[in-house]
Amino acid sequence: MHQTPPIPDAVFQTFDVRSDPSQVAPRLAALRARVAEQGLDGFLIPRADVHQGEYVPDCDARLEYITGFSGSAGLAAIGTKTAALFVDSRYTIQAPQQTDTTLLTVVDTTDTKPGEWIADHFSTGAKLGFDPWLHTHGQIAELEKPLAAVGITLVPSKNPVDAIWQDRPHPPQGPIEVLGHNRTGRSSADKLTRLRETMQTEGADAVVFTLPESLCWLFNIRGRDVPHSPFVLGFAIVAKSGIPTLFVDPSKLIEEHRTALAGIAELADKAGFEVALAALAAQGKTVWFDPATAPHQVRTLLSEGGAKLIEKRDPVLLPKAKKNAVELSGMREAQRNDAVALGRFLAWFERRAPQGGLTEIDIVRKLEAFRRDQGALDISFDTISGSGPNGAIVHYRVSDTSNRTLVPGELMLVDSGAQYASGTTDITRTLSTGPVTAAQQDHFTRVLKGMIAISRARFPVGTTGAQIDILARQFLWQAGLTYNHGTGHGVGAYLSVHEGPAGIAPRYTVPLEEGMVLSNEPGFYLEGQYGIRIENLVAVKTSEIGEGKYLDFETLTLTPIDTRLIDLSLLEQAERDWLNTYHARIREEIGPLLEGEDKAWLERATAAI
Amino acid sequence: MHQTPPIPDAVFQTFDVRSDPSQVAPRLAALRARVAEQGLDGFLIPRADVHQGEYVPDCDARLEYITGFSGSAGLAAIGTKTAALFVDSRYTIQAPQQTDTTLLTVVDTTDTKPGEWIADHFSTGAKLGFDPWLHTHGQIAELEKPLAAVGITLVPSKNPVDAIWQDRPHPPQGPIEVLGHNRTGRSSADKLTRLRETMQTEGADAVVFTLPESLCWLFNIRGRDVPHSPFVLGFAIVAKSGIPTLFVDPSKLIEEHRTALAGIAELADKAGFEVALAALAAQGKTVWFDPATAPHQVRTLLSEGGAKLIEKRDPVLLPKAKKNAVELSGMREAQRNDAVALGRFLAWFERRAPQGGLTEIDIVRKLEAFRRDQGALDISFDTISGSGPNGAIVHYRVSDTSNRTLVPGELMLVDSGAQYASGTTDITRTLSTGPVTAAQQDHFTRVLKGMIAISRARFPVGTTGAQIDILARQFLWQAGLTYNHGTGHGVGAYLSVHEGPAGIAPRYTVPLEEGMVLSNEPGFYLEGQYGIRIENLVAVKTSEIGEGKYLDFETLTLTPIDTRLIDLSLLEQAERDWLNTYHARIREEIGPLLEGEDKAWLERATAAI
Repeated sequence: MHQTPPIPDAVFQTFDVRSDPSQVAPRLAALRARVAEQGLDGFLIPRADVHQGEYVPDCDARLEYITGFSGSAGLAAIGTKTAALFVDSRYTIQAPQQTDTTLLTVVDTTDTKPGEWIADHFSTGAKLGFDPWLHTHGQIAELEKPLAAVGITLVPSKNPVDAIWQDRPHPPQGPIEVLGHNRTGRSSADKLTRLRETMQTEGADAVVFTLPESLCWLFNIRGRDVPHSPFVLGFAIVAKSGIPTLFVDPSKLIEEHRTALAGIAELADKAGFEVALAALAAQGKTVWFDPATAPHQVRTLLSEGGAKLIEKRDPVLLPKAKKNAVELSGMREAQRNDAVALGRFLAWFERRAPQGGLTEIDIVRKLEAFRRDQGALDISFDTISGSGPNGAIVHYRVSDTSNRTLVPGELMLVDSGAQYASGTTDITRTLSTGPVTAAQQDHFTRVLKGMIAISRARFPVGTTGAQIDILARQFLWQAGLTYNHGTGHGVGAYLSVHEGPAGIAPRYTVPLEEGMVLSNEPGFYLEGQYGIRIENLVAVKTSEIGEGKYLDFETLTLTPIDTRLIDLSLLEQAERDWLNTYHARIREEIGPLLEGEDKAWLERATAAI
Repeated sequence: MHQTPPIPDAVFQTFDVRSDPSQVAPRLAALRARVAEQGLDGFLIPRADVHQGEYVPDCDARLEYITGFSGSAGLAAIGTKTAALFVDSRYTIQAPQQTDTTLLTVVDTTDTKPGEWIADHFSTGAKLGFDPWLHTHGQIAELEKPLAAVGITLVPSKNPVDAIWQDRPHPPQGPIEVLGHNRTGRSSADKLTRLRETMQTEGADAVVFTLPESLCWLFNIRGRDVPHSPFVLGFAIVAKSGIPTLFVDPSKLIEEHRTALAGIAELADKAGFEVALAALAAQGKTVWFDPATAPHQVRTLLSEGGAKLIEKRDPVLLPKAKKNAVELSGMREAQRNDAVALGRFLAWFERRAPQGGLTEIDIVRKLEAFRRDQGALDISFDTISGSGPNGAIVHYRVSDTSNRTLVPGELMLVDSGAQYASGTTDITRTLSTGPVTAAQQDHFTRVLKGMIAISRARFPVGTTGAQIDILARQFLWQAGLTYNHGTGHGVGAYLSVHEGPAGIAPRYTVPLEEGMVLSNEPGFYLEGQYGIRIENLVAVKTSEIGEGKYLDFETLTLTPIDTRLIDLSLLEQAERDWLNTYHARIREEIGPLLEGEDKAWLERATAAI
């Protein structure tokens, strides 16, 4: 008989439902008073902070403070009488639960664009304020289109939320670490030299960086300012010569790391950023920034101050995406760690699930504990632990209130990842908990065939992720089925688990290049019943076939795929061969790292089909 | 013993190499004198006429008149001392043969853009004239970019070629036919009503049409102004109310057709077009035209005259591409006719080829004769008849000088099509003339698998040709091979064999819609050895699977694919099933229309594999 050890606590993930809708009324009242004092008829509150990132520090969670809504994307428009909370289709259930719907109308942006709603619900002549650090110029321009027609104007203003926020958390003070060459494979000096070559081609005197991941990569630094991504929040300005300025709180660096940065970057307080932009503008410099992510205010300071603008994609995003040999080696090491954690987790799940009583949160905690054993510094995002019908909610986050106990026979979808010092992981497996139906097998096999088609893809240099996306979808499409998310996203090297500019979906029109790491994650979701997703990470490499002009993928993830869910009659021989070769590789590479029951489980799980 | 009947003459296709390089010197001298008289330092001569079409009438073949070059795309820049002929990679062999290379430098636009070459070879301050009716605004803007930097200006001017052209052919006087409802399925009045709904949405007071295919579709007319496409050359202006004006020579219509058009369109001479544009502009109207094809002069007259511009795709292109039930029925009838012609041709080829001595021109003539027997009014483009190495030249046009005699064992590529009163066809088959090599079979089978993958594709509404393109390429890519052309283009209904806005290639980002007819024609080309292409036409239809939200293809073409060229070990069972089902359908639908030896051939050619 197996013992049933207690489920450990999770350290990196929380399950509480923090928001308290009763707080909305007093906060909204305070905000409205303040907005009126500023001579405005309303204010826009986005979820984003100045860096437009996936995670914002608590001190910048303004949308949540005012509305209670804690989702990863959203916008509120607060008028004197009317107020709306705009969310996308992922959050149409969560948002009304978290906010006070008697005071805020929750609007699904799939149906109604915020600008349209505001045009219909605010009076002609209304002045709506916005914080120009929290929106991009493009976002404001998009909002303004329908408003201009009805005489509503958007006015850049001081943020009234900051003025009324009581007990506001302090800005994050996570320490900054400078990575050694053994982890980055390329010096910051070398990266700067290449960047300046690009700047010269484009005629830029300076580049303004506002994305934390760009700073981290360019200066080979990492921080702890937001959860799940080792970001340093800050800005940087790189001129065509001289030492670049890095706008971060210098107190975040211990002496050793400060010394390591000397000569690479001059440190300046974040408050100096605005002054530096004004100085560039006053000198009439040609300044490059990324219009997709730079704050409206950066553009205003530069253009109104007299700078010439180059509005192009952040020049660090593409070189950052192309991992070098050292980074790839780190990513493989991270995968081995993760494969051991996942192997132990899946073996445990197979032993434990039939005993019953296992909840989604138990699964998150146990998986996190196995990862901590392997040295994970953090998870790379909140684990999606979706049993049965919850698996069909693509962006499901389990909370104390949503938590379900597994029913044997249900499918269980677990999408998770970790941050190791060596690299970042992201993996999804769909687990069987008992007898499976023919429909489940059919759906699982179509998803698997798509995942294998991407894994086996070969394509000429210049091919984009938009072009290969259909390889993952074709087998579902044959049955009149699909999934409403991208097939893959870029993954950073000990950085953010979602990164641009490449990915696998119709919107990714950037050519795939050697060294890019992407997720390969087709899925299928049957609302109210189950979700299926199979996700591996792959690295783009030059193919051995095609005289150096073709690329293909190296699969990085090393965790078995549940063969009991496969309808073998739907697999072509080449697909079966791929799966058997993949499983044999896992047995060889990960087998020696597992012990006892876990090792025996791996032998069974990777047996040839 | 079979008799060998004489090869008939071709009526629709010519094989002469018309150009005479010795004419270039005197014509260039006359042109230069005229250009100098106009106070210019040079002149641009494009291949295009005012309609930017694939075919130009003889009277508008200015580029050929001056340079001798008869290709379907090109541009000459004639300076006082220097002169260049810009052609794309298709024509880098043909162009130097047709022109006088001591007087004109032939420039491959793959390597050097015309603007760059002109910037390098014309003097600072030079004034280069262009005929503003023969270029789009975008083409001129693109040319101007590199010229502005070196102080060269482009000046809209009277065309000096027209002034010096001796014995210039008359404008085409092809009669105009008004099609009945039995052929169009939709009245011109109905088409105009829908067009005006679109105009209202966009806020347009009028639309200016300069594409002949748009006039033909909108007014249900066809003409004979250019070879191989039943075009009426002319213009039209459709205002938001009132009877549209059709600018064509009224003498092209016999009384019966003129009566049929009464109430649908007012006829005006082409000379009145400029006056009408000026009138729209003077009234400050909002006028819609297609910037991709409208002449520079149309834009100038409108914008300088005071009109507001809507520069968007010709609003007729999309509805024209979506064939209605009557048009599709016509397209199927055309395919049956073509299938009988192709069947007789392939049966004849199989009997005749082994006797030896057959030339590429013999094949063109014979195929055309079979099509004429089936009622073809024209071919839809010059047949590409490429034996052995000529098959590897993607846009090969056989001439008296290039004509080759088939060598047994060679592959033979025949890409051809016809215009029937019921519809337009386009088909490519690659023919075996003897024993085939394993490499030929491998290449042929990869192309076939791609063709079958498109034929079997199913995809959600909203999917573009860009997305499905890879289905045709994936099997070649696996072997590090590809083809450098699109997978498919739109095909008109008794109109042009190449039409927009949809197609199958990365550049086609228009969603595929029910009723669109597309070619499906992957290929493979081994330079100096052989070319392989397999082309069927397919029509987009709503799939029986996927609750009306999915589309798939109906294959229209009904001609066997040579199974002796297939490496059966490379075919999946589903692909084999598709081919056997396709061949069985051909046997059933076309078998009864063939006789004797031809019918026996069809039985053999469609036998299951």
